[in-house]
Amino acid sequence: MARVVVDVMPKAEILDPQGQAIVGALGRLGFSGIVDVRQGKRFELEVDDSVDDADLERIAEELLANTVIENFAVTRVPDAQGARS
Amino acid sequence: MARVVVDVMPKAEILDPQGQAIVGALGRLGFSGIVDVRQGKRFELEVDDSVDDADLERIAEELLANTVIENFAVTRVPDAQGARS
Repeated sequence: MARVVVDVMPKAEILDPQGQAIVGALGRLGFSGIVDVRQGKRFELEVDDSVDDADLERIAEELLANTVIENFAVTRVPDAQGARS
Repeated sequence: MARVVVDVMPKAEILDPQGQAIVGALGRLGFSGIVDVRQGKRFELEVDDSVDDADLERIAEELLANTVIENFAVTRVPDAQGARS
């Protein structure tokens, strides 16, 4: 069993209105110094050892990301890591 | 200028219907061996050097995550890294 993280972010040339809304909200809340925010998605997968890197790449490309407007990165992580703790 | 990543994931005890839908879709698409998927959010921030770790923690806790149902992790990353390239 392995844990895999797939990060999906809007491409640099794609407008990100959610991120811009956050920048605006931070200013109104009194946080200064935040120049840019972009919002994407993070997927944490638990996979069998039968799932290889090529499978993971296909899963990310075909199902998790829209590669027209998004980039993705697939990372295998040690079990302890991640925001889930 | 620094780049900061904030990962926000649903807590382990919180149901994640989006993640479960992905598990179901993967099965129908012929990918086997995916035991669990959880979907969260990833924020990439560009911040001034005036923004310290305490500020980032407050931003994540007060604006980016709903700490009733989500955990978050704040990470400063070297400029080259990230799914944005």
